[in-house]
Amino acid sequence: MAKPSPVSPLAPKNVPTLSPIEGVRLATAAAGIKYRGRTDVLLALFDPGTVAAGVFTRSKCPSAPVEWCRAHLKGAKPRALVVNSGNANAFTGKTGRQACAFTARIAAKAAGCKPADVFLASTGVIGEPLDASAFDGVMDQLVADSQPESWLEAAKAIMTTDTFPKVASAKARIGRTLVTINGFAKGAGMIAPDMATMLSYVFTDAPLSAAALQSLLSEGVTDTFNAVTIDGDTSTSDTLMAFATGAAAARGAPRISRASDPRLKAFRKAFQEVLADLSEQVARDGEGARKLVEITVEGAVSKASARRIAMSIANSPLVKTAIAGEDANWGRVVMAVGKAGEPADRDKLSIWFGGIRVAHRGMRDPSYDEAEVSRRMKEQRIPIRVRLGLGKGSDRVLTCDLTKDYIAINGDYRS
Amino acid sequence: MAKPSPVSPLAPKNVPTLSPIEGVRLATAAAGIKYRGRTDVLLALFDPGTVAAGVFTRSKCPSAPVEWCRAHLKGAKPRALVVNSGNANAFTGKTGRQACAFTARIAAKAAGCKPADVFLASTGVIGEPLDASAFDGVMDQLVADSQPESWLEAAKAIMTTDTFPKVASAKARIGRTLVTINGFAKGAGMIAPDMATMLSYVFTDAPLSAAALQSLLSEGVTDTFNAVTIDGDTSTSDTLMAFATGAAAARGAPRISRASDPRLKAFRKAFQEVLADLSEQVARDGEGARKLVEITVEGAVSKASARRIAMSIANSPLVKTAIAGEDANWGRVVMAVGKAGEPADRDKLSIWFGGIRVAHRGMRDPSYDEAEVSRRMKEQRIPIRVRLGLGKGSDRVLTCDLTKDYIAINGDYRS
Repeated sequence: MAKPSPVSPLAPKNVPTLSPIEGVRLATAAAGIKYRGRTDVLLALFDPGTVAAGVFTRSKCPSAPVEWCRAHLKGAKPRALVVNSGNANAFTGKTGRQACAFTARIAAKAAGCKPADVFLASTGVIGEPLDASAFDGVMDQLVADSQPESWLEAAKAIMTTDTFPKVASAKARIGRTLVTINGFAKGAGMIAPDMATMLSYVFTDAPLSAAALQSLLSEGVTDTFNAVTIDGDTSTSDTLMAFATGAAAARGAPRISRASDPRLKAFRKAFQEVLADLSEQVARDGEGARKLVEITVEGAVSKASARRIAMSIANSPLVKTAIAGEDANWGRVVMAVGKAGEPADRDKLSIWFGGIRVAHRGMRDPSYDEAEVSRRMKEQRIPIRVRLGLGKGSDRVLTCDLTKDYIAINGDYRS
Repeated sequence: MAKPSPVSPLAPKNVPTLSPIEGVRLATAAAGIKYRGRTDVLLALFDPGTVAAGVFTRSKCPSAPVEWCRAHLKGAKPRALVVNSGNANAFTGKTGRQACAFTARIAAKAAGCKPADVFLASTGVIGEPLDASAFDGVMDQLVADSQPESWLEAAKAIMTTDTFPKVASAKARIGRTLVTINGFAKGAGMIAPDMATMLSYVFTDAPLSAAALQSLLSEGVTDTFNAVTIDGDTSTSDTLMAFATGAAAARGAPRISRASDPRLKAFRKAFQEVLADLSEQVARDGEGARKLVEITVEGAVSKASARRIAMSIANSPLVKTAIAGEDANWGRVVMAVGKAGEPADRDKLSIWFGGIRVAHRGMRDPSYDEAEVSRRMKEQRIPIRVRLGLGKGSDRVLTCDLTKDYIAINGDYRS
């Protein structure tokens, strides 16, 4: 295990206090999966009537819990969620599937539901068998301890190399009724935008159908979790799930069956904000990160093309190390545009660092002030803007710089 | 500029002495493009009758010299090659094209040929205008100094962040006549396998047609230069050219017009060996590299699929940092297989590190000896083998580990 990292300098200055969501109770425990002296299991309990939605890693080698969740999502009546840190239960073959079934069984017994109503996730080392019997000793206590206010503790229990817990919250009206959206996430390395990245959970008391919730979640990830990359490496465990208890119906919120319902307008925006907040926090906690990098690509032939070019820049080790060195090395941005395989015309390309145009129409901008650019590069948030001049496609992705600490954290994570 | 690096620990122990190739003369000079106290210009002169072949970067933002070479390759009668280090003449717009034309003109004048007979390359910083007038002061002297034995000096003059010059040589018979193949290369970062990577030049006295030489070169790169990656970043300047003087015809070598000519069998093998040797040296000089990593993927649905999976592993920062930490973290190999987007079945996957099977059919191999694997991970050459168990496609790529020195070298390369 690497030395515990200090908190990322990019961590949000203020952590919001999340209010309870009717129908959701949370508890955490230290089951000793891998870590000592900290919690490593989260249990969330849901009242009857809750619906679930999820997006999962596109990895061809998904973890056993990802397969479990996929298999049980359709028609789910979720009553419990169990997440552990310290072991990913990935590439664990039959024993991994057995660990899932065992965990669901004991959670179901303690929570008074069916194993199929239990959702699971694991995060940590890949390939080590997960000893699920560790959960057996804590499950009854978790149920007994569960209460509606432990949001920050929940976010802490699922951390691995994260340096700070990630929570977000928003409120919105559906009809005249105010509903709440709370979420938390973990993720700092092995972050790339194939479907959901890392583990993240969002909860609401809004009375949505499962189909409406799934639509909101699937469309919501495009410009949030799918637009964040730390290192281009896709986890085997990436999971983003949303749970809607529907409890707000008792307070007068109308039941919504379709995501296209116009009464969802404010809720949709708030839901999107929570996803954006959480995913930005993931970029802010990129392993070893010292700079948050916001890459905007404009004038591409399409949004998809802009996304691929933005990702080519965001995943380039040479761009990321230059930013770590506070060097506005736009030549490397040119390189990353060029290698993306997307339509680009060198002689139409313009590039801004920190709001200053450094390259214009295929050449260095003769008027830019290197000293001023250098000052901007010392800031924590580095906007890079690329204008291709070909069409109307634009996109934005978030990443972080690549520092020696990334190497230190990942060079001896397992040992 | 970063502190000068010590020579890579992976550098070849012995540097071969390259014998002359009839029809090729070389000279180097210090034109003061960027570096002080070292050579930074190479001139190669070719006798009349020489033919050329080339493969170039696929970047959409190629350097001005790449465009120059592409434009002049067809029907070329190459008489001179000018390569400089310190400035890439890339993303330099009209002034970059003017610098190319000027350089070709003065080289042509000094060498007594046409500007179109001059080939060019530049390597170094992107986006800074190249002051080609610097060549004006040294060109006549370069022509006067040129001689047939300066192979190592040529390799040195084109180095940038390279820690050692890269040369290779082989001999083969065409008919009964022994011909020579010499080559050199530069490249240490911004190395990815889109067409040729970095700058490399290969020379022979074999009497080949331009078409035959082009075929040999194009087929030769697939498993050599195109199978090497340092950081997944593709240069704007990647150039691999071959020149055949035909001088061996006077010693009885038959003239070969087609690459499929059976008399080329031994030559083809030797030519391939030179490309393989040079490209392996590029991997051995990866910026900050301490380990040469050889990734073999077997049992894929096709060679192309095996290549994509091998590259996904080779370009994974998490795999590369684990190797830097001497950790046989095969879970990260699973991750990289999973994210490649190619057919893979987790439960059929087996993985070897250093010849030891660590994972078998979707699970940790229960019999492997962690201590023995750890010993193997301390070696300089780390073979990683992945068996997918799906088909007959296999492939092999070379890369290196990702160390803090990569960050140090690239975090302040420009400043």
